Amino acid sequence: MKGLYKFLLAAMVLSSCNSAQKEVINAKGEYVGKQPKYVFYFIGDGMSQPQITMAEKAINDDGFLSQFNTQTCNIYNVQKGYSLNVKRLTNSGMATTNAENRFITCSAAAATALATGHKTTINTISKNGDRTENLKAVTEMARDKGMKVGVITSVSIDHATPACFYAHCDDRNNYEEIGHWLLKSNFDFFGGGNVRWNDYKDMTKEQFFDSLKLKGYTIATDLQSFNALNNKTGKIFTTIPKNMEKVHDGSSLPYNIDLDIQSSDDNRLVLRDFVKKAVECLYNEDKGFFIMTEGGKIDWTDHANDAVANEFYQQHPDETLIVFTGDHECGGLTLGFAGTHYESAFNLMKNQTISYQEFSDQDKKFFDKKPSFEETLEWIKQNFGLGDPDVLPLSDYELKRLRTAYDEVNRFLEKKESALSKEERYLYYGNYDYLCVTATHILDNKAGVDWASYSHTALPVPIYSIGHGSELLNGYIDNTDIPNTIMKVVGLK
Amino acid sequence: MKGLYKFLLAAMVLSSCNSAQKEVINAKGEYVGKQPKYVFYFIGDGMSQPQITMAEKAINDDGFLSQFNTQTCNIYNVQKGYSLNVKRLTNSGMATTNAENRFITCSAAAATALATGHKTTINTISKNGDRTENLKAVTEMARDKGMKVGVITSVSIDHATPACFYAHCDDRNNYEEIGHWLLKSNFDFFGGGNVRWNDYKDMTKEQFFDSLKLKGYTIATDLQSFNALNNKTGKIFTTIPKNMEKVHDGSSLPYNIDLDIQSSDDNRLVLRDFVKKAVECLYNEDKGFFIMTEGGKIDWTDHANDAVANEFYQQHPDETLIVFTGDHECGGLTLGFAGTHYESAFNLMKNQTISYQEFSDQDKKFFDKKPSFEETLEWIKQNFGLGDPDVLPLSDYELKRLRTAYDEVNRFLEKKESALSKEERYLYYGNYDYLCVTATHILDNKAGVDWASYSHTALPVPIYSIGHGSELLNGYIDNTDIPNTIMKVVGLK
Repeated sequence: MKGLYKFLLAAMVLSSCNSAQKEVINAKGEYVGKQPKYVFYFIGDGMSQPQITMAEKAINDDGFLSQFNTQTCNIYNVQKGYSLNVKRLTNSGMATTNAENRFITCSAAAATALATGHKTTINTISKNGDRTENLKAVTEMARDKGMKVGVITSVSIDHATPACFYAHCDDRNNYEEIGHWLLKSNFDFFGGGNVRWNDYKDMTKEQFFDSLKLKGYTIATDLQSFNALNNKTGKIFTTIPKNMEKVHDGSSLPYNIDLDIQSSDDNRLVLRDFVKKAVECLYNEDKGFFIMTEGGKIDWTDHANDAVANEFYQQHPDETLIVFTGDHECGGLTLGFAGTHYESAFNLMKNQTISYQEFSDQDKKFFDKKPSFEETLEWIKQNFGLGDPDVLPLSDYELKRLRTAYDEVNRFLEKKESALSKEERYLYYGNYDYLCVTATHILDNKAGVDWASYSHTALPVPIYSIGHGSELLNGYIDNTDIPNTIMKVVGLK
Repeated sequence: MKGLYKFLLAAMVLSSCNSAQKEVINAKGEYVGKQPKYVFYFIGDGMSQPQITMAEKAINDDGFLSQFNTQTCNIYNVQKGYSLNVKRLTNSGMATTNAENRFITCSAAAATALATGHKTTINTISKNGDRTENLKAVTEMARDKGMKVGVITSVSIDHATPACFYAHCDDRNNYEEIGHWLLKSNFDFFGGGNVRWNDYKDMTKEQFFDSLKLKGYTIATDLQSFNALNNKTGKIFTTIPKNMEKVHDGSSLPYNIDLDIQSSDDNRLVLRDFVKKAVECLYNEDKGFFIMTEGGKIDWTDHANDAVANEFYQQHPDETLIVFTGDHECGGLTLGFAGTHYESAFNLMKNQTISYQEFSDQDKKFFDKKPSFEETLEWIKQNFGLGDPDVLPLSDYELKRLRTAYDEVNRFLEKKESALSKEERYLYYGNYDYLCVTATHILDNKAGVDWASYSHTALPVPIYSIGHGSELLNGYIDNTDIPNTIMKVVGLK
């Protein structure tokens, strides 16, 4: 009987494997392939296949690289010369993203799934659904195994996604609690965004940094000290505050499109600089490293940071595992739009020369001058190219949309009642700057894309990977399968 | 030097392979794995990941299976008891779909890519982009190798997608020319939809069937003769005209939602019945078979037809290759909608109890009676549940949308000028029945999904596959890579 049971178990395990997987999984479901020593885990916030293909197409069209912020429907044109590297990651899968209690996930539940291999409830940071137990993250397991661990992000380092890799909290908004988890994580490298000081109640900035120093961290907050970091430095916390002075939350890396607007000094490190530095500092032949990088602003310039990983893979093909995925789709981006039928013209998006955030900030000052509709149209033309008769002439319907937005802004400023129902107003503008969101929607629509939502969607996310064990990240799986597979392959559980 | 060249070639070939692929591809790029003898090639028209996940979610929610027609934004609730089989296909990839001359492809260019492994121009049927050369289809190669070949579809058998597997024409609309190609194809099994007689100019229905008989085909056009078909029948052309009497084009299988409305007799074969019959008739241990099946109506009931293939695979795991993909996304379906924020309620779609086509047909008669807006709302409630205060109350904005549609229908019938600009009217209604498209949009929006387009989009399509050689259909590839890989693996070129 025991023999029959074993046979049935083996048959069950192996019937759900493809031929490549059968080579590395035994009948007990154990991984018997080669164990990678260096792991890169990239998570694109709000990134699914529409965002990847959009960026790829934009590059192919014009050699310009689109940079999206799906949350605010922004698409930026940035410098040339990058190419998407996912095509070099030869294994691929598709992962469902739902939270334990909602079909459309949030960043916390998604990152908990991607960090711990367990579903959880909305807003929970690496705890189980009813928040009674901490769930151990793959990065904590890597630390306990002696691997060097790095956590890097282009948004704040205590944002839900990176937080799930070292913290365990009931709510993603408990930033100060997340900060305490960071202090006791004993991870080797924190890089990119800063801590969200504004959300701290008890601990001051100085106390936080003092605690970090007490724990043995070297803190690098300017370019000179960043450049000085190396393989002998020990534990590192690095962020460049000067880089973020003009960023809304004061703790995220700036959008590349705004770099020229914001600063002309040298403090302009982008995400890949932090990844490169982490590789330099954490590299060791003894126990290896585990580097989690979040592209928190779907920063397609920094998407090229996986080039850093690819380069490392070329040098250590037999010891490296690269996994690239997203936490959820955001914005309901579609690579087609009713108004443009079967046509696309992505190059038109180059006419947007300012980020959503920067435009919104300027918008407030602009309306202080009580501009006429014509002056407003002129200003929109300057920033989006819209209304330029040779490039982007506006149709009657598009003018009507801009007029409605202009009127609504004025009604709001004059504290008059809106002419739209609450539902209609939200559909048109979300919670964003009326004029800016209308202008970006019109521009994107003319380019042949559309956004169905101001929130996340439930579209599954692709997984692209390479290296030993990556054959197991294949097929139509769940996001929890990703860290569970990594744990198995790297020998973390 | 020659040694170095060979070394570099091998390095190039192998560097683009994952570990599983390296096992079956030698340094010259040749396939050295086991050759499958039985090939199932499933193509979902208008199907990408949003459609798959939508169906899956609908099943999980309520045990009901959604059936989409993305072209007309229809979602149907149909009988229980099916489950998606793609999760059993353990290899997965993602394919770009662009045509030679357009980012958003059409069914002809997409099917040419999927049939021949070459890009072509819009509307071209398995010829090169400038239409000077015929491109050989994977099915024609299979025929020439001695395999039994079947082509099955739920739309007309001369529709662009099936046509690309046996015909070579300048334009997908040359139905009669496609019919002639069918006659000389010498394929072993044509099943599902009928020929589009209305588009034939010279050949009569009788002449076409006479020609088929002359070529040695057995023709089965009713249930009794269909049931009599077997492995000894020889070449087969089968379609059930009675099944399609009430279908608009007279040559497609009906939507399942309408089966009860349309007919109570026994002539209600669905796509999987044709697939099952093809397997029965074409099975041979000598040279094997190649069966291409198009789910031309994204018929999610018949999506269960890949269950037929999965069952066959279980019996012949070492000799079967199953490839399941789509030709392009359609409709810009998003699994989230601004108005519902992070919530979804797919079960609401069950309230639609009629297909788009059937509603549109009834709509014309309904408006003959010059109904009031209130009567129209009552009628919409009957067919979509919209306006039922307990289930689907209508907001002011939704009522406004229905009112606008109602007014536009009346203006159209009274030959008055539209109150909307041409652009706005197209955005709201496409080229569809104003009232029907508005009601389905509102219902779908309430369920938490949206459609950005009335056309195809450029979203890549997933590829799910199993069997020897399927490891090569992995990664972010192009749709032309799919048949080229099948040809390589099955030894067709």
